[in-house]
Amino acid sequence: MDKYVIGLDYGTLSARAVLVCVRSGEVIAESIYPYPHGILDHLPGIDKDLPADFALQEINDYVEAMYGTIRDVVKKSGCRVENVIGIGIDATSSTFLPLLKNGEPLCKSEGFQVNPHAWLKLWKHHGAQEEADYITELAGKRGKKFLMRCGGRINAEWMLPKLLEVIRKAPDVYEMTDNFMEVSDYLVYLLTGEVTRCMCHAGYKLLWNEEDGYPSENFLKELHPNFSDLKVKLKGREVQVGECAGKLTKEAAGRLGLKAGTAVAASMIDAHVAVPSAGIDGSSKALMILGTSCCMLLCSEKVSYIRGISGCVKNAVLPGLYAYEAGQSAVGDLFDWFVKTSVPGSYEKEAADLGISVHTLLSEKAAHLTPGESGLIALDWWNGNRSCLADAKLSGMILGLTLRTKPEEIYRALLEAAAFGMRTIFEEFENGGIMAKELYACGGIVSKNPFMMQIYADVLGKTIFTSSANQGSAFGASIYAAVAAGRDAGGYLSVGEAARTMGNIGEKRYEPIAQNVEAYKKLYGEYKLLHDYFGAGGNEVMHRIKQI
Amino acid sequence: MDKYVIGLDYGTLSARAVLVCVRSGEVIAESIYPYPHGILDHLPGIDKDLPADFALQEINDYVEAMYGTIRDVVKKSGCRVENVIGIGIDATSSTFLPLLKNGEPLCKSEGFQVNPHAWLKLWKHHGAQEEADYITELAGKRGKKFLMRCGGRINAEWMLPKLLEVIRKAPDVYEMTDNFMEVSDYLVYLLTGEVTRCMCHAGYKLLWNEEDGYPSENFLKELHPNFSDLKVKLKGREVQVGECAGKLTKEAAGRLGLKAGTAVAASMIDAHVAVPSAGIDGSSKALMILGTSCCMLLCSEKVSYIRGISGCVKNAVLPGLYAYEAGQSAVGDLFDWFVKTSVPGSYEKEAADLGISVHTLLSEKAAHLTPGESGLIALDWWNGNRSCLADAKLSGMILGLTLRTKPEEIYRALLEAAAFGMRTIFEEFENGGIMAKELYACGGIVSKNPFMMQIYADVLGKTIFTSSANQGSAFGASIYAAVAAGRDAGGYLSVGEAARTMGNIGEKRYEPIAQNVEAYKKLYGEYKLLHDYFGAGGNEVMHRIKQI
Repeated sequence: MDKYVIGLDYGTLSARAVLVCVRSGEVIAESIYPYPHGILDHLPGIDKDLPADFALQEINDYVEAMYGTIRDVVKKSGCRVENVIGIGIDATSSTFLPLLKNGEPLCKSEGFQVNPHAWLKLWKHHGAQEEADYITELAGKRGKKFLMRCGGRINAEWMLPKLLEVIRKAPDVYEMTDNFMEVSDYLVYLLTGEVTRCMCHAGYKLLWNEEDGYPSENFLKELHPNFSDLKVKLKGREVQVGECAGKLTKEAAGRLGLKAGTAVAASMIDAHVAVPSAGIDGSSKALMILGTSCCMLLCSEKVSYIRGISGCVKNAVLPGLYAYEAGQSAVGDLFDWFVKTSVPGSYEKEAADLGISVHTLLSEKAAHLTPGESGLIALDWWNGNRSCLADAKLSGMILGLTLRTKPEEIYRALLEAAAFGMRTIFEEFENGGIMAKELYACGGIVSKNPFMMQIYADVLGKTIFTSSANQGSAFGASIYAAVAAGRDAGGYLSVGEAARTMGNIGEKRYEPIAQNVEAYKKLYGEYKLLHDYFGAGGNEVMHRIKQI
Repeated sequence: MDKYVIGLDYGTLSARAVLVCVRSGEVIAESIYPYPHGILDHLPGIDKDLPADFALQEINDYVEAMYGTIRDVVKKSGCRVENVIGIGIDATSSTFLPLLKNGEPLCKSEGFQVNPHAWLKLWKHHGAQEEADYITELAGKRGKKFLMRCGGRINAEWMLPKLLEVIRKAPDVYEMTDNFMEVSDYLVYLLTGEVTRCMCHAGYKLLWNEEDGYPSENFLKELHPNFSDLKVKLKGREVQVGECAGKLTKEAAGRLGLKAGTAVAASMIDAHVAVPSAGIDGSSKALMILGTSCCMLLCSEKVSYIRGISGCVKNAVLPGLYAYEAGQSAVGDLFDWFVKTSVPGSYEKEAADLGISVHTLLSEKAAHLTPGESGLIALDWWNGNRSCLADAKLSGMILGLTLRTKPEEIYRALLEAAAFGMRTIFEEFENGGIMAKELYACGGIVSKNPFMMQIYADVLGKTIFTSSANQGSAFGASIYAAVAAGRDAGGYLSVGEAARTMGNIGEKRYEPIAQNVEAYKKLYGEYKLLHDYFGAGGNEVMHRIKQI
């Protein structure tokens, strides 16, 4: 008798649930729930827009999404309720909310509905840039070890700067809060009644690690006099990914139409669950999640300082291994920008006549060029540089333009630049002794742009394995659910085992073409020279020009 | 009784004649003649294309153009033939042909019709690049003074490298040739029967100057063993612009329907005649001819070494003054490239709906931006850099691109880059002690792109006077015709006097806006830094990338 697990993924604007067969990894049913309130422009009843860098959401949207989509997939699948053995939830991170002692969201409490800092803050809330910079600066001065693990710079999207923002801007909110919870931990709490805190979030977003715990009380106090008790406001039993956080309560089971006692996995970060999804079960296998931006995940037995990464956390993805996260701020977004702003009407018409997308048309035309033929080279920093320069103020550049330059040549140069950017990341890892021996790719670009995938193989000089179907993060969450359920219940013993069985290594792979590899080696040399000149102090024109 | 003069201008693909009133400078009639053969793909009767860098033409096209257009303007004007007092001819340069002793073009002679080197070579014939480089190198080694006058580098479009090409590639053509003549001198010869050589061509294109004459026999011999007798093959009485080269012969007068004895002016270079056209009558007044590319002319009493100019020749434009020529290889061409390759269909549609050009639409949108607002900066080297780096291998660059960058922002950055390029030229002149105290502009961009003109004023920080009507070079040629005719015949005593009276200073002028001048000073600092880094040895990626 087949067993089933449910994976639930919370994105920026919608949630998606899948019901998956534990034996085959087949997705049996899925359900999507767009958040009715999206990202809030203003707070209810307040006739004033929120600042542009704020990104707040309605917690009820998340709760409704959970009950609605889970009921929906169970119903659609037609499977017997007793065969559903586990639930796993991932979400964007750090996306969190302040809770009262009774477990209620503070934003629902009298007097706090009008305070933006009492609300659920989305990962992309950018109100804490100043705080992030301040933490980076102070940590540098105090020689804090955690700086090493996070690439040397604190990101404003993390929880620690956002909490410092709260205590600075809304001390009453800070004081009233009993517990600041990642929304995925909060949802686990609603299902199980257990207050847990999955340490994958804490590792990346709160600078926690296994040996040293959170930043010291002294350091926190130096950040803000009333910040030293922060740990008291980070309640919850510490759990790791793949662990069972708790069992479905009778009440929750009733609402979902599932069996009470069903295992609920420790919460996860959305991007990370793609690793077992792609069938990755161990170290030295890098996964590139290629979408609008790029997130690269690589597990290793070793801990090492790598400049400009987004973090390095033990047990965060595969138990027992350090999970390194790095990324590029614009990949698909960059190509889309070009198609939207820089391609003439004649090309749009040609694509429409052929019934193909402009991307495909440009790829087809660009495929006739050899590497380097156009004489163009670009820096892919249209949205700044995440890894390894960690500099949001950097910007894009194209060089080699002539009166004969055609749109498909520029398009190709942009694809190449994104791949070169990826190569700088792998080189930085190699310099730190962390090798990516095998390369995997998933995400929208894998299915939409095979031409780009070949460029990645040629620029990186390695075979690229792809995830044949893009099951998304919800699928990954279901893999952890199967581990949380455990072997006895019909699930798996470990994340590695579940990844090997349920995970999806595609049949399509991209092999590097020797001649292109050679040409790209030279072009990459030029890219690196420009990268260092504009990105590492040679000429800070990209910073200065924003202030003229 | 009004007197009239005829100006005849030979462009790359057509010739144009105007008949002009000497007193008012009014253009009474004009006539255009496109060359039926254009630029030759192959020689007649030879079933093989000419090399891509060859640019040969049919001399008969030039001759027919002369007789046809002059007859046409005389007829259209309805003026009395005895009131036409002079003819002036300018042409592109160096555009020349080899002649036999009897004055016949060598290419018409038995056995030479099949030899491309026997044909008329257009200025843009690029077959002598190797020879140009070799002359530069040898002149540098030998410390030749003429290098100083031509900006330090020999251009493949000049006559000397093209003649070295002939002697190397077609020694029989060199040997059979009695006289290598600029086509404008040849046309003067057809009208007057006088073999003259206007030294403005010789100064710019043959490295001749008043004090030292042509490059020495020793130097020529070192270039090629049989090259030392070159001067013998450069026959003709030496004349200067504004001089009368000769009188219309009876035969030519008959063909033209004009009076025998009518003055024919010494031949001229097409761009140069724009100086008196714009009313410039003396030193320190710079003329920017802004079209597809940009040619800047500035007369001065002083001789000085200016890096990367196209030449400095005494008497070549205004008698008694040194005429400096410098330029930019792509101006209007660059903006056109952008409009053709990089503007989305939605903009094309918007412009069409408004009944305006895409250039105008982009200018209108870009006009809402302040200098520096877009955060973009570009290097304008889409067709290499003529002055002052004299490096055809340089290429264009844009920096500061983000996901929010719009087409009008890039368009504005390109306009600014062209103006910054112009500023580098004026700075180079200032460094050499040659000041441009007043700025004049003429050419297609003046009438088509007022937005660009304001940017020039703001970037250069000076008032820009414009030529209100773009009469083209034919009008300028007619001014020299009035000088050649002389005061007694109803013309003028000097080019200065003719320029003041006939020349066309427009009413429209562009005043610099103080606030923009300030912002552009900063932006220009960034431009110059990038200019020197990529153009003057900091990073020769633009050279290397062409060879990957």
